[in-house]
Amino acid sequence: MRYRDTGVDVERADAIKQALARAVESTWGPDVLRLRGGFAGVMRWPEAHDASTGATLVAASLDGVGSKLELARQAGRLREAAADLVYHGANDLLVHGATPLAFLDYIAQARLDAALVLAVVEGLSQACRTVGAALLGGETAEMPDTYRPDVVDVAGCMIGRLEPGRLLDGAAVRAGDVVLGLASDGLHTNGYTLARRVLERSGLGLEGLLPGGGGERLGAALLAPHRWYGPALAPALEAGEAHALAHITGGGLAGNLVRVLPEGCRARIDPKAWPRPALFRWLMAAGEIPESDARVTFNLGIGMAVVCASDRAPALAAALRGRGERVETIGAIVPGARGVEWMEG
Amino acid sequence: MRYRDTGVDVERADAIKQALARAVESTWGPDVLRLRGGFAGVMRWPEAHDASTGATLVAASLDGVGSKLELARQAGRLREAAADLVYHGANDLLVHGATPLAFLDYIAQARLDAALVLAVVEGLSQACRTVGAALLGGETAEMPDTYRPDVVDVAGCMIGRLEPGRLLDGAAVRAGDVVLGLASDGLHTNGYTLARRVLERSGLGLEGLLPGGGGERLGAALLAPHRWYGPALAPALEAGEAHALAHITGGGLAGNLVRVLPEGCRARIDPKAWPRPALFRWLMAAGEIPESDARVTFNLGIGMAVVCASDRAPALAAALRGRGERVETIGAIVPGARGVEWMEG
Repeated sequence: MRYRDTGVDVERADAIKQALARAVESTWGPDVLRLRGGFAGVMRWPEAHDASTGATLVAASLDGVGSKLELARQAGRLREAAADLVYHGANDLLVHGATPLAFLDYIAQARLDAALVLAVVEGLSQACRTVGAALLGGETAEMPDTYRPDVVDVAGCMIGRLEPGRLLDGAAVRAGDVVLGLASDGLHTNGYTLARRVLERSGLGLEGLLPGGGGERLGAALLAPHRWYGPALAPALEAGEAHALAHITGGGLAGNLVRVLPEGCRARIDPKAWPRPALFRWLMAAGEIPESDARVTFNLGIGMAVVCASDRAPALAAALRGRGERVETIGAIVPGARGVEWMEG
Repeated sequence: MRYRDTGVDVERADAIKQALARAVESTWGPDVLRLRGGFAGVMRWPEAHDASTGATLVAASLDGVGSKLELARQAGRLREAAADLVYHGANDLLVHGATPLAFLDYIAQARLDAALVLAVVEGLSQACRTVGAALLGGETAEMPDTYRPDVVDVAGCMIGRLEPGRLLDGAAVRAGDVVLGLASDGLHTNGYTLARRVLERSGLGLEGLLPGGGGERLGAALLAPHRWYGPALAPALEAGEAHALAHITGGGLAGNLVRVLPEGCRARIDPKAWPRPALFRWLMAAGEIPESDARVTFNLGIGMAVVCASDRAPALAAALRGRGERVETIGAIVPGARGVEWMEG
């Protein structure tokens, strides 16, 4: 009985790992130590901006790509979906004012497929370069008893740092603030289990046209990359203009915005304040998805919410538009029980 | 069509997440920020020990538990197997001289089982307290199309810091050094896909007696916790006694020791220098596993290798024994092509 017989091929796994080195090292700046061995990745952490103001803050977030990965695999677009995981983690750090510096990944399959793993790591690497993170380490796992055949799961941990005094956690939010919504590019990384069911039920394939989508194909619409809001929001964060950010992921707009509201602050969201993209309209119609379910499942067109003072909102919105974002005022903070309500009618 | 129908129950997932908070927060010291929201975990990073010697070094490693988890699930011992993931990551950091400070986990199933997820997080939390890491964040994922029914996968990222000047990467290894082997407690977290096949083939259950095991049951032997070597090795690392460490995981003793050898250094390992535990003898016999396969699959009784100067080895071995380790001199570093060879006959 040899290990290979059990579905875990150590030599093949080693060969894959070597093929990945080039992609990984493309993300390494001078702060990453070229370690012999590399049981762990080690990198220099930039010194605190102002040594007099206290300790370095390290921020970290771990996510999976979820079911988008399976749709992307079937469409031959794993590279892009892997990149989404990096953008997801970078946006999560951004919410607290942190800057991405390092990423580590986990790639698991029943049996590792070298081409597939390489596509994933190339996608991760490209996105790491975009957000400025070193792909500091990772793990590939072959688990024939855990994973369904062919599918792959990818998770990853984004680590970053916070300038002293730059922490954002919603404590600055107060009644009278407004909520700006930054447009998403499709589903980002949430709601894909449902979206895939709708796609199946519709009988349309990935090459089918998105109804109302002006000629866009369903595959392109469903697999649009997760938007990375760092470059657009950096000046606002530096200037202290944002009272809170909320990255709209699982749970939808309300489920995420509520996470950064202090006691006594209630967000009122006007669902008519921004155009609902054709993709969401089609998903809801084709899947007969009730509005209430869609709101907790999909981002419905808003990928990042920014809470700011009402008198600063017009200038902030204009600045964000100048940096390529589509921005609408989607709601306001009012006094009341901590929560988010949707304005109806 | 409602989201619940697709196998992803958002409300139930939320309820699980709340039940986990107590376990997670049991790992939080005063350096962890109690963030509103928590899109990412944020913690204060201890200042560099000696500010004059340079930037903070951050070390990170991401691993999965692998197939041990499935065996543990079947045996109702998920808590312990989850803890192993933390010890695995902490040992990986230790190899480079780093101290664990934060851990983030990923738990994925076809459908989340609340009791199971809680057992995993409680196990992770207990181990995080043991190694001194805050369980800073995590993600639970329900992916009915990716995971086989009932099984669970858990991966996690350990993050730590290095005192300036304390980095260990094998550069200090030289011919004439000796290799000390610290005993493992069973398989640790590698070789379980094969071990499970052997167990099945043997017809013995987890309650069966381990042949030659002095009355130990197979379940207890196979699921022994991954040993954490930090407390035993800390004084040696502080004193600069270790020229290199190698954590013996996938790939076995040779496959891991070679990772920390510099060019021109060859390790010669004497497989008779330490007693081969009954568990490995049984696995090889019952599974008809050739010696060459066993060596790249199992740790065969050595969980951590320490390379040190030969004149310091006796005192170091004695000190490690005094801290509860079983230690043998298992080999030597000789001049030659970088690699590891097994002494035969």
